[in-house]
Amino acid sequence: MGVKNDIIKMAKAAKKASFALSQLSSQDKNFAIRKMAENIERDTNFIIKANAKDIKEAKGDKRKSSFIDRLELNSKRIKSMVASLYEIIKLDDVVGEIREIKRRPNGLLIGKMRVPIGVVGIIYESRPNVTSDCVGLCIKSANSVILKGGSEALNSNSAIFKSLKDAISDTPVPKESIALITSKERKAITELLRLNDYVDLIIPRGGEGLIKEVAEESRIPVIKHYKGVCHVYIDSDADLNMAHKITINAKVQRPGVCNAMETLLVHKDVAARFLPVIADDLKNKGVEIRGCNKTKKIVKWVKKATREDWFTEYLDLILSVKVVDSLDEAISHINTYGTHHSDAIVTDNYNNAMKFLNGVDSACVYLNASTRFTDGYEFGMGAEIGISTDKLHARGPMGLEELTTYKYVILGKGQVRS
Amino acid sequence: MGVKNDIIKMAKAAKKASFALSQLSSQDKNFAIRKMAENIERDTNFIIKANAKDIKEAKGDKRKSSFIDRLELNSKRIKSMVASLYEIIKLDDVVGEIREIKRRPNGLLIGKMRVPIGVVGIIYESRPNVTSDCVGLCIKSANSVILKGGSEALNSNSAIFKSLKDAISDTPVPKESIALITSKERKAITELLRLNDYVDLIIPRGGEGLIKEVAEESRIPVIKHYKGVCHVYIDSDADLNMAHKITINAKVQRPGVCNAMETLLVHKDVAARFLPVIADDLKNKGVEIRGCNKTKKIVKWVKKATREDWFTEYLDLILSVKVVDSLDEAISHINTYGTHHSDAIVTDNYNNAMKFLNGVDSACVYLNASTRFTDGYEFGMGAEIGISTDKLHARGPMGLEELTTYKYVILGKGQVRS
Repeated sequence: MGVKNDIIKMAKAAKKASFALSQLSSQDKNFAIRKMAENIERDTNFIIKANAKDIKEAKGDKRKSSFIDRLELNSKRIKSMVASLYEIIKLDDVVGEIREIKRRPNGLLIGKMRVPIGVVGIIYESRPNVTSDCVGLCIKSANSVILKGGSEALNSNSAIFKSLKDAISDTPVPKESIALITSKERKAITELLRLNDYVDLIIPRGGEGLIKEVAEESRIPVIKHYKGVCHVYIDSDADLNMAHKITINAKVQRPGVCNAMETLLVHKDVAARFLPVIADDLKNKGVEIRGCNKTKKIVKWVKKATREDWFTEYLDLILSVKVVDSLDEAISHINTYGTHHSDAIVTDNYNNAMKFLNGVDSACVYLNASTRFTDGYEFGMGAEIGISTDKLHARGPMGLEELTTYKYVILGKGQVRS
Repeated sequence: MGVKNDIIKMAKAAKKASFALSQLSSQDKNFAIRKMAENIERDTNFIIKANAKDIKEAKGDKRKSSFIDRLELNSKRIKSMVASLYEIIKLDDVVGEIREIKRRPNGLLIGKMRVPIGVVGIIYESRPNVTSDCVGLCIKSANSVILKGGSEALNSNSAIFKSLKDAISDTPVPKESIALITSKERKAITELLRLNDYVDLIIPRGGEGLIKEVAEESRIPVIKHYKGVCHVYIDSDADLNMAHKITINAKVQRPGVCNAMETLLVHKDVAARFLPVIADDLKNKGVEIRGCNKTKKIVKWVKKATREDWFTEYLDLILSVKVVDSLDEAISHINTYGTHHSDAIVTDNYNNAMKFLNGVDSACVYLNASTRFTDGYEFGMGAEIGISTDKLHARGPMGLEELTTYKYVILGKGQVRS
């Protein structure tokens, strides 16, 4: 009962605060975000000390080094959190803009005003920097935010949150507009997901299990930030030098992120020329290759891929490779096994390019470029709250604009309907 | 088991068909919609006969006359269904448009392509014309559609659907792209709502109970078309002649629809002048008034409103009236008791107008005009699939544009990330 009541109270207060927040000027919101940046900088040691507790616990639990790396904060990483907040201050504030105003035959002016979504719940794992990034973006877009980080980062998140909350106490931003759920009980998430009267959107960021659970349980609309099983397809009409460069970049430049390539698809007509060369280069760069039967015929030494591989996000120096008979097979493979994240074609053929761009059902579809560009900064929207793999409201990188919605404003001079 | 398997099969086929559908030209889609219109016209008698069975059953079940009116089809109503299909042919097709193409510093061209949502499930009650309207709009926007109408209209819906399905058999539109669930079992809906792998969006249209159940049960994103508890607020600085005209129009012109006013809010400074006159006029037009205590002090003969009244969508010649002390109280009342549908202020005061437009959290916020304009045709978007009272993806009238989403297309010349 305690957890439930706490969360209801928190959400009610956040909803109420969201109305006041939505009326603030950009100056007021930026003032609060600047205070947050100053506080985080001031509290660096305090935050690192709190983080050390989480790290110690993670080590005691024999967590993997990649897990501990994601969890760890140091002064460089905290500087980067501070820098992100200053970046958010610089971004344009779209709240209150009225767009596409049309004059109807009866003289009514009808336009769409950009407005905050209201209260956003963010459920995330590990990386504690998400705490300050999300608070900064939500305040700038005038949304109240309720955070639920993973238990493994509770000390770090609490310290960062304390610093942020303290920062807004002397600003026009209502203090109830930011909240952190500190309960370690699983039912805290369940309770949050039921509060559709107060919370307008849930964004889950993290592992597959978490996201599936949230999506199934939630009564609140969810925008999933799901894994990225991204593909590069080398067409029969590809420039093979370009194909080589893009393949290496998409797999090797930063394999641990969601926009890195996991599966390479190669048209049968170029497979015999392309695969031996790229396989050698990938091997030299430490990449393990798992190929289909046709791939194995061309490059004998690769491991055999199983059906499971086509579904797998390795986030590592592993690549599955499949030779396809046609562009249609490539598109169908991507739509079947991919996660609607980022997929690329390399080709010089106009018709094939258009067919791929139209046929692949993903948030970001590339022609002759690396999938690694799927990112709020690279797309020119500044910081991002994540990358949506859902189809409604927002697809791909979600920035400030995607944290708003619209309402119609209709300006009349006494019009009535006849 | 039978129902479950049937629905899974139907949804899988609809998903597959949606890919082919998304690639069709506007001409091909319009050709299919024209065939549908011709078929419905040809099958008028067949549809009226089927409808007669539903009417007979409804009368046997002692349904209300308003219920039977919504259910009934006659040649005039079928003509209007046909006319709607011809209207849809005329609408612009936005599928495939690429907007906001930006050139990034690295030369990448990044734009947003409008694409269909995929498979749309529509769960609706009574009015059988929804069947042909929704099929027409979904095919034009290149979405597969799965329909689940109410059991009370099953004969009518089945006849209309048969006519539509028959129409597309000789067109490029895949026949699996339209489907009707004919099971009368409640679990048919439950099964549909679980198919998040195949169905991309659920639109429930109908009574409060239906919509709440669907929203709670669905694993698929839902855009609710909820009831309209719409308000008109008469400000202290209102032109009272205009206020009178708008009040009458919003309540009386067509009381049975969701954009009609249900609650009138009046600022205390004009209540004594405005209320006696408007109350008399409303009474003469057959409107029952339920007032707050302050209203009753001014107009003694009105009934007393209970708290329940503020939440009620009468859809009838009944009006609740409340005197408020301030604009703030009006905004707060609307955000608390309203349904985020359509709300209006009547005022000549610029600051009050802006405060109302910014502060009211509804899909459509009006200044000096009747709420009755919330409608796809009136907003200039042509036919509508309904009126969203949700906040994400689409608010207010949903037309063809709102039945699409976007994907990023990124055109490069070999760019890789450094």
